[in-house]
Amino acid sequence: MQRYFLEEDYIEGNPLTLIEENYHHAARVMRMKPKDKCYLSFMNDQTIVAEVIEIDGNTITLSEVSKEVMDKELPVSVTIACGYTKGDKLELVAQKATELGMDRLVGFPAQASVVKWDHKKLNKKQERLSKIAKEAAEQSHRQSVPDIELFSSYQELLESLKYYTHVLIAYEESAKSGEASQFAKVVSRLDTKDRVLIIFGPEGGLSLKEVQEIEGMNGVRCALGPRILRAETAPMYALSAISYELELRRQL
Amino acid sequence: MQRYFLEEDYIEGNPLTLIEENYHHAARVMRMKPKDKCYLSFMNDQTIVAEVIEIDGNTITLSEVSKEVMDKELPVSVTIACGYTKGDKLELVAQKATELGMDRLVGFPAQASVVKWDHKKLNKKQERLSKIAKEAAEQSHRQSVPDIELFSSYQELLESLKYYTHVLIAYEESAKSGEASQFAKVVSRLDTKDRVLIIFGPEGGLSLKEVQEIEGMNGVRCALGPRILRAETAPMYALSAISYELELRRQL
Repeated sequence: MQRYFLEEDYIEGNPLTLIEENYHHAARVMRMKPKDKCYLSFMNDQTIVAEVIEIDGNTITLSEVSKEVMDKELPVSVTIACGYTKGDKLELVAQKATELGMDRLVGFPAQASVVKWDHKKLNKKQERLSKIAKEAAEQSHRQSVPDIELFSSYQELLESLKYYTHVLIAYEESAKSGEASQFAKVVSRLDTKDRVLIIFGPEGGLSLKEVQEIEGMNGVRCALGPRILRAETAPMYALSAISYELELRRQL
Repeated sequence: MQRYFLEEDYIEGNPLTLIEENYHHAARVMRMKPKDKCYLSFMNDQTIVAEVIEIDGNTITLSEVSKEVMDKELPVSVTIACGYTKGDKLELVAQKATELGMDRLVGFPAQASVVKWDHKKLNKKQERLSKIAKEAAEQSHRQSVPDIELFSSYQELLESLKYYTHVLIAYEESAKSGEASQFAKVVSRLDTKDRVLIIFGPEGGLSLKEVQEIEGMNGVRCALGPRILRAETAPMYALSAISYELELRRQL
Protein backbone atom coordinates (compact mmCIF):
# COMPACT_ATOMS: atom_id res chain seq x y z
CA MET A 1 0.00 0.00 0.00
CA GLN A 2 1.38 3.39 -1.00
CA ARG A 3 2.32 5.92 1.67
CA TYR A 4 2.01 9.71 1.31
CA PHE A 5 3.60 12.30 3.57
CA LEU A 6 1.40 15.35 4.16
CA GLU A 7 2.83 18.69 5.15
CA GLU A 8 0.25 19.28 7.84
CA ASP A 9 -0.62 17.96 11.29
CA TYR A 10 -3.23 15.27 11.75
CA ILE A 11 -6.34 16.64 13.43
CA GLU A 12 -9.20 14.21 14.02
CA GLY A 13 -12.11 14.98 11.72
CA ASN A 14 -10.27 17.36 9.35
CA PRO A 15 -10.88 16.80 5.63
CA LEU A 16 -8.28 14.55 3.96
CA THR A 17 -6.92 15.46 0.54
CA LEU A 18 -3.97 14.71 -1.71
CA ILE A 19 -2.82 17.67 -3.81
CA GLU A 20 0.13 18.73 -5.98
CA GLU A 21 3.00 16.19 -6.05
CA ASN A 22 1.11 13.63 -3.98
CA TYR A 23 -1.95 14.08 -6.20
CA HIS A 24 0.16 13.61 -9.30
CA HIS A 25 1.74 10.43 -7.95
CA ALA A 26 -1.53 8.92 -6.71
CA ALA A 27 -3.70 9.88 -9.70
CA ARG A 28 -1.22 9.62 -12.57
CA VAL A 29 1.55 7.21 -11.51
CA MET A 30 -0.42 4.82 -9.27
CA ARG A 31 -3.73 5.42 -11.13
CA MET A 32 -5.68 5.14 -7.89
CA LYS A 33 -9.45 4.81 -8.06
CA PRO A 34 -12.27 5.29 -5.55
CA LYS A 35 -12.14 2.62 -2.78
CA ASP A 36 -8.34 2.23 -3.15
CA LYS A 37 -6.49 2.59 0.12
CA CYS A 38 -3.21 4.27 1.11
CA TYR A 39 -1.32 5.44 4.19
CA LEU A 40 -1.26 9.14 5.06
CA SER A 41 1.58 10.22 7.36
CA PHE A 42 1.34 13.64 9.02
CA MET A 43 3.91 16.08 10.40
CA ASN A 44 2.92 15.26 14.01
CA ASP A 45 4.01 11.61 13.56
CA GLN A 46 0.47 10.30 13.15
CA THR A 47 -0.34 7.85 10.39
CA ILE A 48 -3.72 6.67 9.20
CA VAL A 49 -5.07 4.31 6.56
CA ALA A 50 -7.36 6.26 4.22
CA GLU A 51 -9.72 5.31 1.38
CA VAL A 52 -10.20 7.28 -1.83
CA ILE A 53 -13.67 8.84 -2.09
CA GLU A 54 -13.37 11.05 -5.14
CA ILE A 55 -10.79 12.15 -7.71
CA ASP A 56 -11.07 15.36 -9.71
CA GLY A 57 -8.61 17.30 -11.86
CA ASN A 58 -6.31 18.38 -9.04
CA THR A 59 -7.47 16.86 -5.74
CA ILE A 60 -8.10 13.41 -4.32
CA THR A 61 -10.54 13.35 -1.41
CA LEU A 62 -10.20 10.53 1.10
CA SER A 63 -11.79 9.29 4.31
CA GLU A 64 -10.11 7.73 7.32
CA VAL A 65 -10.36 3.96 7.69
CA SER A 66 -8.12 3.30 10.70
CA LYS A 67 -5.07 4.53 12.60
CA GLU A 68 -1.75 2.88 11.93
CA VAL A 69 -0.65 1.57 15.28
CA MET A 70 2.60 -0.29 14.67
CA ASP A 71 5.62 1.88 15.31
CA LYS A 72 8.10 1.79 12.45
CA GLU A 73 10.49 4.39 13.79
CA LEU A 74 13.73 3.51 15.59
CA PRO A 75 13.22 3.91 19.36
CA VAL A 76 16.17 6.33 19.54
CA SER A 77 16.87 9.36 17.37
CA VAL A 78 19.97 8.76 15.24
CA THR A 79 21.62 11.57 13.29
CA ILE A 80 24.17 10.59 10.64
CA ALA A 81 26.87 13.21 9.93
CA CYS A 82 28.93 12.69 6.77
CA GLY A 83 32.01 14.57 5.59
CA TYR A 84 31.35 15.69 2.02
CA THR A 85 32.39 13.01 -0.46
CA LYS A 86 32.85 12.98 -4.20
CA GLY A 87 30.12 11.87 -6.58
CA ASP A 88 26.68 10.72 -5.48
CA LYS A 89 27.69 8.81 -2.36
CA LEU A 90 25.66 11.13 -0.14
CA GLU A 91 22.61 10.25 -2.23
CA LEU A 92 23.14 6.55 -1.54
CA VAL A 93 23.48 7.35 2.18
CA ALA A 94 20.28 9.44 2.11
CA GLN A 95 18.35 6.57 0.53
CA LYS A 96 19.75 3.62 2.49
CA ALA A 97 20.02 5.36 5.88
CA THR A 98 16.38 6.45 5.54
CA GLU A 99 15.35 2.85 4.92
CA LEU A 100 17.38 1.88 7.99
CA GLY A 101 15.66 4.35 10.32
CA MET A 102 17.88 7.47 10.42
CA ASP A 103 16.18 10.52 11.97
CA ARG A 104 18.39 13.23 10.44
CA LEU A 105 21.24 13.55 7.96
CA VAL A 106 23.82 16.30 8.19
CA GLY A 107 26.74 16.93 5.85
CA PHE A 108 29.86 18.93 6.63
CA PRO A 109 33.12 19.92 4.91
CA ALA A 110 35.87 17.80 6.49
CA GLN A 111 39.57 18.54 6.18
CA ALA A 112 39.92 15.69 3.66
CA SER A 113 36.80 16.65 1.66
CA VAL A 114 37.87 17.23 -1.92
CA VAL A 115 34.65 18.87 -3.08
CA LYS A 116 33.96 22.50 -2.22
CA TRP A 117 30.31 23.50 -2.40
CA ASP A 118 29.04 27.09 -2.22
CA HIS A 119 25.67 28.06 -0.71
CA LYS A 120 23.83 27.75 -4.01
CA LYS A 121 25.20 24.28 -4.65
CA LEU A 122 24.48 23.27 -1.04
CA ASN A 123 20.85 24.37 -1.35
CA LYS A 124 20.43 22.38 -4.54
CA LYS A 125 22.06 19.29 -2.97
CA GLN A 126 19.85 19.61 0.09
CA GLU A 127 16.73 19.71 -2.06
CA ARG A 128 17.83 16.66 -4.01
CA LEU A 129 18.70 14.70 -0.85
CA SER A 130 15.37 15.65 0.77
CA LYS A 131 13.54 14.28 -2.25
CA ILE A 132 15.49 11.00 -2.09
CA ALA A 133 14.82 10.68 1.66
CA LYS A 134 11.09 11.33 1.15
CA GLU A 135 10.84 8.63 -1.53
CA ALA A 136 12.83 6.16 0.57
CA ALA A 137 10.61 6.89 3.60
CA GLU A 138 7.53 6.15 1.50
CA GLN A 139 8.97 2.92 0.11
CA SER A 140 10.14 1.64 3.47
CA HIS A 141 6.80 2.49 5.14
CA ARG A 142 8.27 4.91 7.63
CA GLN A 143 6.07 7.31 9.57
CA SER A 144 8.36 10.32 9.28
CA VAL A 145 10.83 11.70 6.75
CA PRO A 146 14.40 12.44 7.90
CA ASP A 147 15.52 16.09 7.93
CA ILE A 148 18.53 16.96 5.82
CA GLU A 149 20.91 19.75 6.76
CA LEU A 150 24.10 20.57 4.88
CA PHE A 151 26.53 22.70 6.87
CA SER A 152 28.80 25.13 5.06
CA SER A 153 31.47 24.93 7.79
CA TYR A 154 32.97 22.34 10.12
CA GLN A 155 32.34 24.80 12.96
CA GLU A 156 28.57 24.37 12.54
CA LEU A 157 28.95 20.65 13.13
CA LEU A 158 30.94 21.29 16.33
CA GLU A 159 28.31 23.73 17.55
CA SER A 160 25.58 21.14 17.09
CA LEU A 161 27.29 18.48 19.27
CA LYS A 162 25.70 19.81 22.46
CA TYR A 163 22.23 18.70 21.35
CA TYR A 164 23.10 15.00 21.56
CA THR A 165 23.28 12.57 24.47
CA HIS A 166 25.92 10.47 22.64
CA VAL A 167 28.45 11.51 19.99
CA LEU A 168 30.26 8.65 18.25
CA ILE A 169 33.13 9.04 15.78
CA ALA A 170 33.59 6.22 13.28
CA TYR A 171 37.36 6.22 12.95
CA GLU A 172 39.19 3.98 10.49
CA GLU A 173 42.35 3.84 12.58
CA SER A 174 40.31 2.38 15.44
CA ALA A 175 39.23 -0.46 13.11
CA LYS A 176 42.83 -1.06 12.06
CA SER A 177 44.07 -1.17 15.64
CA GLY A 178 41.46 -3.75 16.57
CA GLU A 179 39.38 -1.57 18.93
CA ALA A 180 36.14 -3.50 19.32
CA SER A 181 34.14 -2.44 22.31
CA GLN A 182 33.26 1.28 22.30
CA PHE A 183 30.42 1.13 19.77
CA ALA A 184 28.75 -1.90 21.36
CA LYS A 185 29.21 -0.40 24.83
CA VAL A 186 27.21 2.70 23.87
CA VAL A 187 24.62 0.98 21.64
CA SER A 188 23.82 -1.85 24.05
CA ARG A 189 23.00 0.70 26.77
CA LEU A 190 20.94 3.15 24.69
CA ASP A 191 17.79 4.47 26.24
CA THR A 192 14.67 5.33 24.23
CA LYS A 193 14.92 9.07 24.83
CA ASP A 194 18.57 9.23 23.73
CA ARG A 195 19.73 11.37 20.82
CA VAL A 196 22.72 9.83 19.04
CA LEU A 197 25.04 11.53 16.57
CA ILE A 198 27.45 9.36 14.57
CA ILE A 199 30.15 11.18 12.61
CA PHE A 200 31.70 9.67 9.47
CA GLY A 201 34.64 11.01 7.49
CA PRO A 202 34.84 11.46 3.71
CA GLU A 203 36.86 8.99 1.53
CA GLY A 204 40.14 10.15 3.09
CA GLY A 205 38.76 9.70 6.60
CA LEU A 206 38.71 12.23 9.44
CA SER A 207 42.03 13.78 10.44
CA LEU A 208 43.49 13.07 13.86
CA LYS A 209 43.00 16.78 14.65
CA GLU A 210 39.28 16.57 13.82
CA VAL A 211 38.88 13.41 15.88
CA GLN A 212 40.65 14.93 18.89
CA GLU A 213 38.59 18.10 18.67
CA ILE A 214 35.34 16.10 18.78
CA GLU A 215 36.71 13.90 21.56
CA GLY A 216 37.36 17.07 23.53
CA MET A 217 33.62 17.74 23.28
CA ASN A 218 32.60 14.32 24.66
CA GLY A 219 32.84 12.42 21.37
CA VAL A 220 33.89 8.77 21.58
CA ARG A 221 35.94 7.18 18.80
CA CYS A 222 34.88 3.71 17.79
CA ALA A 223 35.38 0.97 15.19
CA LEU A 224 32.59 -0.68 13.25
CA GLY A 225 34.17 -4.14 13.07
CA PRO A 226 37.64 -5.11 11.83
CA ARG A 227 37.11 -4.51 8.12
CA ILE A 228 37.63 -1.12 6.52
CA LEU A 229 34.22 0.13 5.30
CA ARG A 230 33.75 2.69 2.55
CA ALA A 231 32.46 6.11 3.57
CA GLU A 232 28.94 5.28 2.38
CA THR A 233 28.82 1.76 3.87
CA ALA A 234 29.75 2.68 7.45
CA PRO A 235 26.47 4.57 8.22
CA MET A 236 24.49 1.54 7.01
CA TYR A 237 26.45 -0.70 9.40
CA ALA A 238 25.84 1.63 12.35
CA LEU A 239 22.09 1.98 11.74
CA SER A 240 21.63 -1.77 11.13
CA ALA A 241 23.44 -2.57 14.37
CA ILE A 242 21.33 -0.07 16.34
CA SER A 243 18.12 -1.47 14.85
CA TYR A 244 19.26 -5.03 15.58
CA GLU A 245 20.11 -4.16 19.20
CA LEU A 246 16.98 -2.12 19.99
CA GLU A 247 14.29 -3.54 17.72
CA LEU A 248 15.20 -7.23 17.52
CA ARG A 249 17.58 -8.23 20.31
CA ARG A 250 15.64 -6.51 23.09
CA GLN A 251 12.54 -8.47 22.05
CA LEU A 252 14.21 -11.78 22.98
CA MET B 1 48.81 -0.40 2.33
CA GLN B 2 47.60 -2.15 -0.82
CA ARG B 3 46.46 -5.78 -0.65
CA TYR B 4 46.86 -8.33 -3.45
CA PHE B 5 45.12 -11.68 -3.69
CA LEU B 6 47.33 -14.42 -5.16
CA GLU B 7 45.87 -17.48 -6.82
CA GLU B 8 48.20 -19.86 -5.04
CA ASP B 9 48.74 -21.28 -1.57
CA TYR B 10 51.20 -19.74 0.84
CA ILE B 11 54.18 -22.05 1.38
CA GLU B 12 56.91 -20.80 3.73
CA GLY B 13 60.06 -19.94 1.77
CA ASN B 14 58.46 -20.03 -1.71
CA PRO B 15 59.44 -17.12 -4.01
CA LEU B 16 56.96 -14.21 -3.93
CA THR B 17 55.96 -12.48 -7.17
CA LEU B 18 53.21 -10.25 -8.54
CA ILE B 19 52.35 -10.96 -12.19
CA GLU B 20 49.65 -10.11 -14.75
CA GLU B 21 46.73 -8.07 -13.32
CA ASN B 22 48.37 -7.66 -9.90
CA TYR B 23 51.63 -6.64 -11.56
CA HIS B 24 49.83 -4.10 -13.69
CA HIS B 25 48.06 -2.59 -10.69
CA ALA B 26 51.17 -2.48 -8.48
CA ALA B 27 53.64 -1.28 -11.12
CA ARG B 28 51.44 0.96 -13.26
CA VAL B 29 48.53 2.17 -11.09
CA MET B 30 50.23 2.31 -7.66
CA ARG B 31 53.73 2.96 -9.14
CA MET B 32 55.35 0.85 -6.43
CA LYS B 33 59.11 1.04 -6.01
CA PRO B 34 61.69 -1.16 -4.24
CA LYS B 35 61.23 -1.08 -0.42
CA ASP B 36 57.48 -0.33 -0.77
CA LYS B 37 55.31 -2.73 1.22
CA CYS B 38 51.99 -4.46 0.51
CA TYR B 39 49.82 -7.29 1.82
CA LEU B 40 49.77 -10.60 -0.05
CA SER B 41 46.73 -12.80 0.66
CA PHE B 42 46.88 -16.45 -0.43
CA MET B 43 44.28 -19.09 -1.29
CA ASN B 44 44.91 -20.97 1.99
CA ASP B 45 43.79 -17.93 4.04
CA GLN B 46 47.33 -16.85 4.93
CA THR B 47 48.31 -13.21 4.63
CA ILE B 48 51.78 -11.70 4.85
CA VAL B 49 53.32 -8.26 4.64
CA ALA B 50 55.88 -8.23 1.81
CA GLU B 51 58.46 -5.72 0.58
CA VAL B 52 59.26 -5.02 -3.06
CA ILE B 53 62.80 -6.17 -4.02
CA GLU B 54 62.82 -5.73 -7.77
CA ILE B 55 60.53 -4.66 -10.61
CA ASP B 56 61.09 -5.70 -14.22
CA GLY B 57 58.90 -5.53 -17.34
CA ASN B 58 56.34 -8.11 -16.19
CA THR B 59 57.16 -9.29 -12.65
CA ILE B 60 57.56 -7.75 -9.22
CA THR B 61 59.72 -9.81 -6.85
CA LEU B 62 59.07 -9.42 -3.14
CA SER B 63 60.33 -10.75 0.18
CA GLU B 64 58.34 -11.57 3.31
CA VAL B 65 58.47 -9.03 6.15
CA SER B 66 55.93 -10.47 8.61
CA LYS B 67 52.74 -12.50 8.91
CA GLU B 68 49.46 -10.65 9.27
CA VAL B 69 47.97 -11.80 12.54
CA MET B 70 44.79 -9.84 13.03
CA ASP B 71 41.75 -11.71 11.81
CA LYS B 72 39.52 -9.64 9.58
CA GLU B 73 37.11 -12.39 8.61
CA LEU B 74 33.68 -12.82 10.22
CA PRO B 75 33.89 -15.66 12.78
CA VAL B 76 31.00 -17.47 11.05
CA SER B 77 30.59 -18.24 7.36
CA VAL B 78 27.65 -16.26 5.93
CA THR B 79 26.27 -16.97 2.46
CA ILE B 80 23.93 -14.39 0.95
CA ALA B 81 21.39 -15.76 -1.56
CA CYS B 82 19.58 -13.20 -3.71
CA GLY B 83 16.70 -13.72 -6.11
CA TYR B 84 17.67 -12.14 -9.44
CA THR B 85 16.77 -8.45 -9.54
CA LYS B 86 16.62 -5.89 -12.30
CA GLY B 87 19.51 -3.55 -13.09
CA ASP B 88 22.81 -3.59 -11.24
CA LYS B 89 21.50 -4.21 -7.72
CA LEU B 90 23.39 -7.50 -7.48
CA GLU B 91 26.59 -5.55 -8.16
CA LEU B 92 25.87 -3.25 -5.21
CA VAL B 93 25.24 -6.32 -3.05
CA ALA B 94 28.50 -7.94 -4.23
CA GLN B 95 30.46 -4.82 -3.28
CA LYS B 96 28.79 -3.90 0.02
CA ALA B 97 28.31 -7.46 1.32
CA THR B 98 32.00 -8.16 0.64
CA GLU B 99 32.96 -5.11 2.72
CA LEU B 100 30.65 -6.37 5.44
CA GLY B 101 32.24 -9.83 5.63
CA MET B 102 30.11 -12.14 3.43
CA ASP B 103 31.77 -15.49 2.66
CA ARG B 104 29.78 -16.39 -0.45
CA LEU B 105 27.16 -14.87 -2.75
CA VAL B 106 24.67 -16.98 -4.67
CA GLY B 107 22.00 -15.79 -7.07
CA PHE B 108 18.88 -17.69 -8.09
CA PRO B 109 15.82 -17.14 -10.30
CA ALA B 110 12.87 -16.55 -7.93
CA GLN B 111 9.23 -16.76 -8.95
CA ALA B 112 8.99 -12.96 -8.95
CA SER B 113 12.30 -12.42 -10.79
CA VAL B 114 11.55 -10.42 -13.92
CA VAL B 115 14.93 -10.95 -15.62
CA LYS B 116 15.65 -14.23 -17.37
CA TRP B 117 19.35 -14.97 -17.87
CA ASP B 118 20.70 -17.83 -20.05
CA HIS B 119 23.97 -19.66 -19.29
CA LYS B 120 26.09 -17.29 -21.34
CA LYS B 121 24.66 -14.23 -19.60
CA LEU B 122 25.03 -15.91 -16.19
CA ASN B 123 28.72 -16.65 -16.84
CA LYS B 124 29.33 -13.06 -17.83
CA LYS B 125 27.48 -11.76 -14.75
CA GLN B 126 29.42 -14.15 -12.51
CA GLU B 127 32.72 -12.89 -13.89
CA ARG B 128 31.68 -9.27 -13.37
CA LEU B 129 30.48 -9.90 -9.81
CA SER B 130 33.69 -11.79 -8.95
CA LYS B 131 35.76 -8.84 -10.11
CA ILE B 132 33.69 -6.44 -7.96
CA ALA B 133 34.03 -8.74 -4.93
CA LYS B 134 37.81 -9.00 -5.40
CA GLU B 135 38.20 -5.22 -5.56
CA ALA B 136 35.97 -4.73 -2.51
CA ALA B 137 37.94 -7.38 -0.57
CA GLU B 138 41.17 -5.54 -1.36
CA GLN B 139 39.76 -2.15 -0.33
CA SER B 140 38.26 -3.42 2.92
CA HIS B 141 41.46 -5.29 3.87
CA ARG B 142 39.84 -8.70 3.91
CA GLN B 143 41.94 -11.84 3.90
CA SER B 144 39.79 -13.81 1.48
CA VAL B 145 37.59 -13.05 -1.53
CA PRO B 146 33.95 -14.25 -1.48
CA ASP B 147 32.95 -16.92 -4.01
CA ILE B 148 30.15 -16.03 -6.39
CA GLU B 149 27.80 -18.67 -7.77
CA LEU B 150 24.81 -17.92 -9.98
CA PHE B 151 22.29 -20.75 -10.16
CA SER B 152 20.28 -21.25 -13.30
CA SER B 153 17.38 -22.83 -11.40
CA TYR B 154 15.60 -22.43 -8.06
CA GLN B 155 16.05 -26.19 -7.60
CA GLU B 156 19.84 -25.71 -7.28
CA LEU B 157 19.27 -23.33 -4.37
CA LEU B 158 17.03 -25.89 -2.64
CA GLU B 159 19.64 -28.62 -3.13
CA SER B 160 22.32 -26.45 -1.50
CA LEU B 161 20.34 -25.92 1.74
CA LYS B 162 21.68 -29.10 3.34
CA TYR B 163 25.20 -27.64 3.56
CA TYR B 164 24.19 -25.01 6.13
CA THR B 165 23.68 -25.16 9.89
CA HIS B 166 21.15 -22.29 9.73
CA VAL B 167 18.89 -21.21 6.86
CA LEU B 168 17.14 -17.86 7.34
CA ILE B 169 14.52 -16.41 5.02
CA ALA B 170 14.18 -12.61 5.02
CA TYR B 171 10.45 -12.27 4.47
CA GLU B 172 8.78 -8.90 4.00
CA GLU B 173 5.45 -10.11 5.36
CA SER B 174 7.19 -11.00 8.64
CA ALA B 175 8.37 -7.39 8.92
CA LYS B 176 4.87 -6.11 8.24
CA SER B 177 3.32 -8.38 10.86
CA GLY B 178 5.78 -7.19 13.49
CA GLU B 179 7.70 -10.46 13.96
CA ALA B 180 10.83 -9.39 15.80
CA SER B 181 12.60 -12.25 17.45
CA GLN B 182 13.60 -15.03 15.00
CA PHE B 183 16.63 -13.30 13.49
CA ALA B 184 18.08 -12.19 16.85
CA LYS B 185 17.36 -15.62 18.34
CA VAL B 186 19.53 -17.34 15.73
CA VAL B 187 22.23 -14.65 15.46
CA SER B 188 22.75 -14.19 19.21
CA ARG B 189 23.41 -17.93 19.57
CA LEU B 190 25.71 -18.42 16.57
CA ASP B 191 28.76 -20.58 17.08
CA THR B 192 32.05 -19.93 15.30
CA LYS B 193 31.87 -23.09 13.20
CA ASP B 194 28.33 -22.37 11.97
CA ARG B 195 27.49 -21.96 8.31
CA VAL B 196 24.62 -19.53 7.78
CA LEU B 197 22.57 -19.05 4.61
CA ILE B 198 20.28 -16.01 4.40
CA ILE B 199 17.82 -15.96 1.51
CA PHE B 200 16.50 -12.67 0.06
CA GLY B 201 13.79 -12.26 -2.56
CA PRO B 202 13.91 -10.02 -5.64
CA GLU B 203 12.02 -6.68 -5.74
CA GLY B 204 8.65 -8.44 -5.68
CA GLY B 205 9.71 -10.54 -2.68
CA LEU B 206 9.60 -14.31 -2.27
CA SER B 207 6.27 -16.02 -2.85
CA LEU B 208 4.51 -17.76 0.02
CA LYS B 209 5.05 -21.03 -1.86
CA GLU B 210 8.81 -20.45 -1.99
CA VAL B 211 8.93 -19.50 1.68
CA GLN B 212 6.96 -22.58 2.71
CA GLU B 213 9.13 -24.86 0.59
CA ILE B 214 12.30 -23.56 2.28
CA GLU B 215 10.61 -23.74 5.70
CA GLY B 216 9.91 -27.41 4.97
CA MET B 217 13.68 -27.85 4.67
CA ASN B 218 14.46 -26.29 8.07
CA GLY B 219 14.44 -22.67 6.89
CA VAL B 220 13.25 -20.07 9.40
CA ARG B 221 11.40 -16.95 8.26
CA CYS B 222 12.44 -13.74 9.94
CA ALA B 223 12.08 -9.97 9.82
CA LEU B 224 14.97 -7.51 9.75
CA GLY B 225 13.29 -4.79 11.78
CA PRO B 226 9.91 -3.12 11.24
CA ARG B 227 10.79 -1.08 8.14
CA ILE B 228 10.52 -2.51 4.64
CA LEU B 229 14.05 -2.73 3.21
CA ARG B 230 14.85 -2.79 -0.49
CA ALA B 231 16.15 -6.05 -1.95
CA GLU B 232 19.73 -4.76 -1.95
CA THR B 233 19.60 -3.15 1.53
CA ALA B 234 18.40 -6.21 3.45
CA PRO B 235 21.67 -8.23 3.01
CA MET B 236 23.65 -5.24 4.35
CA TYR B 237 21.41 -5.12 7.43
CA ALA B 238 21.84 -8.84 8.08
CA LEU B 239 25.64 -8.82 7.73
CA SER B 240 26.04 -5.65 9.84
CA ALA B 241 23.93 -7.17 12.61
CA ILE B 242 25.94 -10.42 12.56
CA SER B 243 29.22 -8.48 12.69
CA TYR B 244 27.91 -6.31 15.53
CA GLU B 245 26.78 -9.34 17.52
CA LEU B 246 29.89 -11.49 17.00
CA GLU B 247 32.71 -9.00 16.52
CA LEU B 248 31.70 -6.11 18.78
CA ARG B 249 29.06 -7.17 21.28
CA ARG B 250 30.81 -10.37 22.33
CA GLN B 251 33.94 -8.31 23.16
CA LEU B 252 32.07 -6.45 25.93
